[in-house]
Amino acid sequence: MSFRTSIPETSRAAVAKQALTTEIQSFRIPEIGPDDGLLQVEASAVCGTDWEIYGRKSRGGGLGPLILGHENVGRIVALGERAAERWGVQVGDRVAVEEFLPCGTCRLCRDGNYRICEATDSRSAKPFLRYGSTPISIEPALFGGFSEYLYLHPRAILYPISQDLPAELATLFVPISNGIRWVVQEGGLQLGQTAVIMGPGQHGLGCVVAAREAGAGKIIVIGTAADRDRLDLAAALGADHIVIADEVNPVDVVRDLTEGRGGDVIVDLVPGVTSTVDDAVEMVAKRGHIVLAASKHGAAVSGFAHDTVVRKEARLMGVRGHDHRSVEPALAIIASGRYPLERMCTHSFALSDVDTALRMAGERTDPAAIHVSVLPSASASAPAPAPAAA
Amino acid sequence: MSFRTSIPETSRAAVAKQALTTEIQSFRIPEIGPDDGLLQVEASAVCGTDWEIYGRKSRGGGLGPLILGHENVGRIVALGERAAERWGVQVGDRVAVEEFLPCGTCRLCRDGNYRICEATDSRSAKPFLRYGSTPISIEPALFGGFSEYLYLHPRAILYPISQDLPAELATLFVPISNGIRWVVQEGGLQLGQTAVIMGPGQHGLGCVVAAREAGAGKIIVIGTAADRDRLDLAAALGADHIVIADEVNPVDVVRDLTEGRGGDVIVDLVPGVTSTVDDAVEMVAKRGHIVLAASKHGAAVSGFAHDTVVRKEARLMGVRGHDHRSVEPALAIIASGRYPLERMCTHSFALSDVDTALRMAGERTDPAAIHVSVLPSASASAPAPAPAAA
Amino acid sequence: MSFRTSIPETSRAAVAKQALTTEIQSFRIPEIGPDDGLLQVEASAVCGTDWEIYGRKSRGGGLGPLILGHENVGRIVALGERAAERWGVQVGDRVAVEEFLPCGTCRLCRDGNYRICEATDSRSAKPFLRYGSTPISIEPALFGGFSEYLYLHPRAILYPISQDLPAELATLFVPISNGIRWVVQEGGLQLGQTAVIMGPGQHGLGCVVAAREAGAGKIIVIGTAADRDRLDLAAALGADHIVIADEVNPVDVVRDLTEGRGGDVIVDLVPGVTSTVDDAVEMVAKRGHIVLAASKHGAAVSGFAHDTVVRKEARLMGVRGHDHRSVEPALAIIASGRYPLERMCTHSFALSDVDTALRMAGERTDPAAIHVSVLPSASASAPAPAPAAA
Amino acid sequence: MSFRTSIPETSRAAVAKQALTTEIQSFRIPEIGPDDGLLQVEASAVCGTDWEIYGRKSRGGGLGPLILGHENVGRIVALGERAAERWGVQVGDRVAVEEFLPCGTCRLCRDGNYRICEATDSRSAKPFLRYGSTPISIEPALFGGFSEYLYLHPRAILYPISQDLPAELATLFVPISNGIRWVVQEGGLQLGQTAVIMGPGQHGLGCVVAAREAGAGKIIVIGTAADRDRLDLAAALGADHIVIADEVNPVDVVRDLTEGRGGDVIVDLVPGVTSTVDDAVEMVAKRGHIVLAASKHGAAVSGFAHDTVVRKEARLMGVRGHDHRSVEPALAIIASGRYPLERMCTHSFALSDVDTALRMAGERTDPAAIHVSVLPSASASAPAPAPAAA
Repeated sequence: MSFRTSIPETSRAAVAKQALTTEIQSFRIPEIGPDDGLLQVEASAVCGTDWEIYGRKSRGGGLGPLILGHENVGRIVALGERAAERWGVQVGDRVAVEEFLPCGTCRLCRDGNYRICEATDSRSAKPFLRYGSTPISIEPALFGGFSEYLYLHPRAILYPISQDLPAELATLFVPISNGIRWVVQEGGLQLGQTAVIMGPGQHGLGCVVAAREAGAGKIIVIGTAADRDRLDLAAALGADHIVIADEVNPVDVVRDLTEGRGGDVIVDLVPGVTSTVDDAVEMVAKRGHIVLAASKHGAAVSGFAHDTVVRKEARLMGVRGHDHRSVEPALAIIASGRYPLERMCTHSFALSDVDTALRMAGERTDPAAIHVSVLPSASASAPAPAPAAA
Repeated sequence: MSFRTSIPETSRAAVAKQALTTEIQSFRIPEIGPDDGLLQVEASAVCGTDWEIYGRKSRGGGLGPLILGHENVGRIVALGERAAERWGVQVGDRVAVEEFLPCGTCRLCRDGNYRICEATDSRSAKPFLRYGSTPISIEPALFGGFSEYLYLHPRAILYPISQDLPAELATLFVPISNGIRWVVQEGGLQLGQTAVIMGPGQHGLGCVVAAREAGAGKIIVIGTAADRDRLDLAAALGADHIVIADEVNPVDVVRDLTEGRGGDVIVDLVPGVTSTVDDAVEMVAKRGHIVLAASKHGAAVSGFAHDTVVRKEARLMGVRGHDHRSVEPALAIIASGRYPLERMCTHSFALSDVDTALRMAGERTDPAAIHVSVLPSASASAPAPAPAAA
Repeated sequence: MSFRTSIPETSRAAVAKQALTTEIQSFRIPEIGPDDGLLQVEASAVCGTDWEIYGRKSRGGGLGPLILGHENVGRIVALGERAAERWGVQVGDRVAVEEFLPCGTCRLCRDGNYRICEATDSRSAKPFLRYGSTPISIEPALFGGFSEYLYLHPRAILYPISQDLPAELATLFVPISNGIRWVVQEGGLQLGQTAVIMGPGQHGLGCVVAAREAGAGKIIVIGTAADRDRLDLAAALGADHIVIADEVNPVDVVRDLTEGRGGDVIVDLVPGVTSTVDDAVEMVAKRGHIVLAASKHGAAVSGFAHDTVVRKEARLMGVRGHDHRSVEPALAIIASGRYPLERMCTHSFALSDVDTALRMAGERTDPAAIHVSVLPSASASAPAPAPAAA
Repeated sequence: MSFRTSIPETSRAAVAKQALTTEIQSFRIPEIGPDDGLLQVEASAVCGTDWEIYGRKSRGGGLGPLILGHENVGRIVALGERAAERWGVQVGDRVAVEEFLPCGTCRLCRDGNYRICEATDSRSAKPFLRYGSTPISIEPALFGGFSEYLYLHPRAILYPISQDLPAELATLFVPISNGIRWVVQEGGLQLGQTAVIMGPGQHGLGCVVAAREAGAGKIIVIGTAADRDRLDLAAALGADHIVIADEVNPVDVVRDLTEGRGGDVIVDLVPGVTSTVDDAVEMVAKRGHIVLAASKHGAAVSGFAHDTVVRKEARLMGVRGHDHRSVEPALAIIASGRYPLERMCTHSFALSDVDTALRMAGERTDPAAIHVSVLPSASASAPAPAPAAA
């Protein structure tokens, strides 16, 4: 048995087939059984990973044509009976959806590390499922948020959100939960310690919020002159010091601000640039932690100062994604209104403008852009709603 | 007030002045006050760090002339009253002495990380004290074990050992305590997990013992064909698998032995070679740990595979030295006789042969050499005692 | 699709209906679908919890009639296609089966704490499933090991074992994995520390093995004069000191053996007696851990010395059961043959003698009894096989 | 060599000789050598421990006559040369002083647990030193803050504070650092979790600040009707829910506020009452933590629900005091002005009114009293300064 509101027979979605372009295609909406459900997508935000997949030359050699979009928020419009019980939700509820569709039974899942379960890892040699990177050849195709409807697979992980939380604001659960996990839960920031955030994009800003929430003694954010808008927002969110890396040597600044000790937790979020790792090693305190959270697009770090890492007894830790332990507090922080997070939601686009949205987030065609959303259920003829904030 | 047995007025010591040579010099034995003491050195083992300091071109530009030797064991021959109470020892007791002389009051000391206290760090910009790397210009000069007598500074850290434990065997407290700290206490090896030890020198063998004690499920040791003797001993100490890196690809072997998962804790102990770090990143399991414990002599790692570290959520951790939490169990393990550790003690030399000892350990002039000791109180004319083992 | 060997239509099982008695009943073996399987039970060992449930007055007011037995080992005789893939096993494989049937999707499961998931907790107000405590009114009834066949529910957790490991020996995975989790993974025993095990039953002996594997510096086991056989075995498994609580004050002994410091990890396994908690508080070291693992049958501890806990900064931790992190190494330890574990397997009985088995384990009708197994597939007329060991 | 400003030859101090009374006595100010110093006490706040010692019947059978006061803040007026370097301070600096005078070399000190070092434990069988509980028979007697001057022993631990931080406000470093350590560093409160604080005295309020700083999802404070003023302040400091235990069952309230799950970290701060421990066991979540921080005046907990602790896998942890890891962030929080902490500083008294101060804090003669300070350098004839806040 399953419940559903009135829903159409097909869903329009933006399919990434060739590099750097999508095309709108219609997919048949599947029958919903006792264990699954269907989400009407309200907002699906653009992330760096989308841009990376979007730009790949050959779709055939990679994942195959697929629907991007993995920071998803929407309303449940169909729901199986067992799914309702398992997820604790009903038709009509609004939810945030993790990108992970873990198996739930492997060693990593049982360890509490479901986010890196092979069954949800797009780099796995075995079959996998993951929102935003599952090819449309996998039934029922609707595994990406740049689509009117998203299939809620039995393995999906949902979080109820209130009826009045703006959808774009809610999609911030991804950067903020990542920030919480990277800075605090993995990075191990202790109350009173100094956090250094390299790269003030949406994830860097999420890290600022996380560090502030966890009682950081000092938050230092490093960006470039081009990041001015983002750095202003970082300050508004609670950063104590802003460093423009084009103008000063950030290593020196961090040393000065920490009486020569260095930062306790350094988070490197700068995509494609490897010298930030070298800087992190220089600016970290004895026994400090360096969180590696960016993609360097496969580039090796050429000058990794091994002996400095040893001398300082520093730790470097690769991190990926979030989990329920970080998503739940992230959603509570968003709902609390304690931070001017609406200022992060700079742009949103209709489904027909997905390519513009992707380029804006990926190429930073507008320096003011921070968190860019696609609102797939908004009418294509109507302009996209204004940002959530007043 | 202080107690002392009959002791001479001077101590002969081997002083490192020029690169790759030492000369015997006599130093006045200081008055012992209420807070300090004097050790008659029974054995002082040679470590890679000794070789590194010994080989430095210009002593003047570096630390200045000094007495090497920081893996020290001996008998207390003079002792201040307050020192006796603080250390819980008496004149006549035999002790092992840590190389660290920490301040005891800085933030690192109060954190339980005295081994990296600035006041005992020879790379510190401030004055420091450390056995085996303190210049003879610092009174009373006797800060190295390649000397008949060692000054027991008020900040020294001592561990009583029994009257019948062979001195050379006792100096193994350094590699074994390092192994315990690196593999278990920092490396975080869990009962049943797979440890991979790269480099079967005295520290690698110490890591094997530590992994075995901590209930490793599988211990894999990687060496080269030239390490045959050491690898045989690794197996005798409890290694489950020996890998000759000249003959097979160790990354493949580790994968095969772990059903494709990779090793849980990888320890890189190979001095001067950076490619082992790349191998470690390849062979580590998801969420696994890579312990960086070697000196790469300042060389940067050129191919550090950043994105692999992120994808696996791997951790790299620099480590240095030991502390009481690892020295105490190390001494208990040595005393237990559970391991054929006497096979590690391959060579010992009189004080007059310090240069031979250093070369044997540093250049591996004899491939059979593993743990090489100097016995400063042995008569120069008499041959050095045979190894401790039967 | 599913695979199966030739299997009968019904399974005989011992059903606990009235207090302190069982009766043999036949149950229809269910159809096996793609997600589940069927186990031919080779051995199902008796645990204290079985005795507790077995003795309850009113079955109707409690869990209802049920098949006991939750330390289960056997051979897979039928298996669904998806189950085969998920569990990584085939028909014919031998497996150990955890008692837990967790939901896999609640917060506790996602945290890595599936063993206390509400859906597998027999004290939960909601419907639950758990081997050995699920009423026969729940289809297909075969949820206990005192039965020829056990239903392998889709949520079951299986561990392959080799073809030649004696089944009774294999059922020791429960006490040994519990020991690993309680002493090491929760108890936090560090290499070189002192473990004190109160109560030398099968779980106490499992704790001895765990402490030995984890490199305990000293293992002290406390029992009574009636435990003489068990204490002898504790010594054979690696206990360093045996204390007879009828003859000496164990608190004094522990203090003496630890130079006044007290034990680092104290495990209280004594069922129904609360004074052991008071003793544990007295004998624990500053900053030491007290692991509460027994059932006190609902009795409150009357003399809990709160201020001593504060003064020592001691920790008390309730623990229940094991998980994959402890079961996997437990099975490896059993298979290694490093410990004379066959000496634990003192008695085994045919299905028709379940009541004798339960009484022997629960009332200790034979002081030599330690680990008592039921072998449901052994012929009732033939005598039960001798213990596994030579 | 040492430096000093002009200081008198004697210090007036309130000496606790008989139960519940003090008398003013003059002590000779000692010569300051190279390793020690002298503090002019600006403020010394009253703590529950002071009240406990103050009330003891026989001073002779206990600690002997002594100067109470261990929450000390003042100005350095004399300082040895080595002390200046070790502490990093100068004559004229203002500092907060921990009560602990640890040995710095025992196992506990080297572990980072100096606060429970035997040498600073007033319940130790060996000689000890501790501010506020060292008898005046120990030279130079000035070991308590209810005195114009406090001897800065070589083992003292100091924290510089700014010239403009009001002294009474600064003494809050004790309750706030305790809160940080108890709730976060030992209690393990995670970002987003629920903290329950039982007892809204100065330490309970410190716990509220700590929980808020660490990103608690929900802070519930439990008190009685008599605590109304304190509970109002708890709300002002960031508590989300206030529970009056006389009016409702706090266990039910905590369950309701946590959707039946229970609190993650429960801190019991209620002195002399043991039923709060039972409540804590009832209201804690599965896997939750109960922090035992109060003195129950030696009373045993009579109804400790052992089996509930096991079933929930709950943890109880005794805690005492703070350390540099909590004092440093506490002082930063006080200096930040982020919390209306001046509202805690309700009363202050001149040295001549120490008995009034003690009674106000200990007997709660004024329900409005929270944090009561003695200002020993204030003129006795002049009224004590008003609270620090505007």
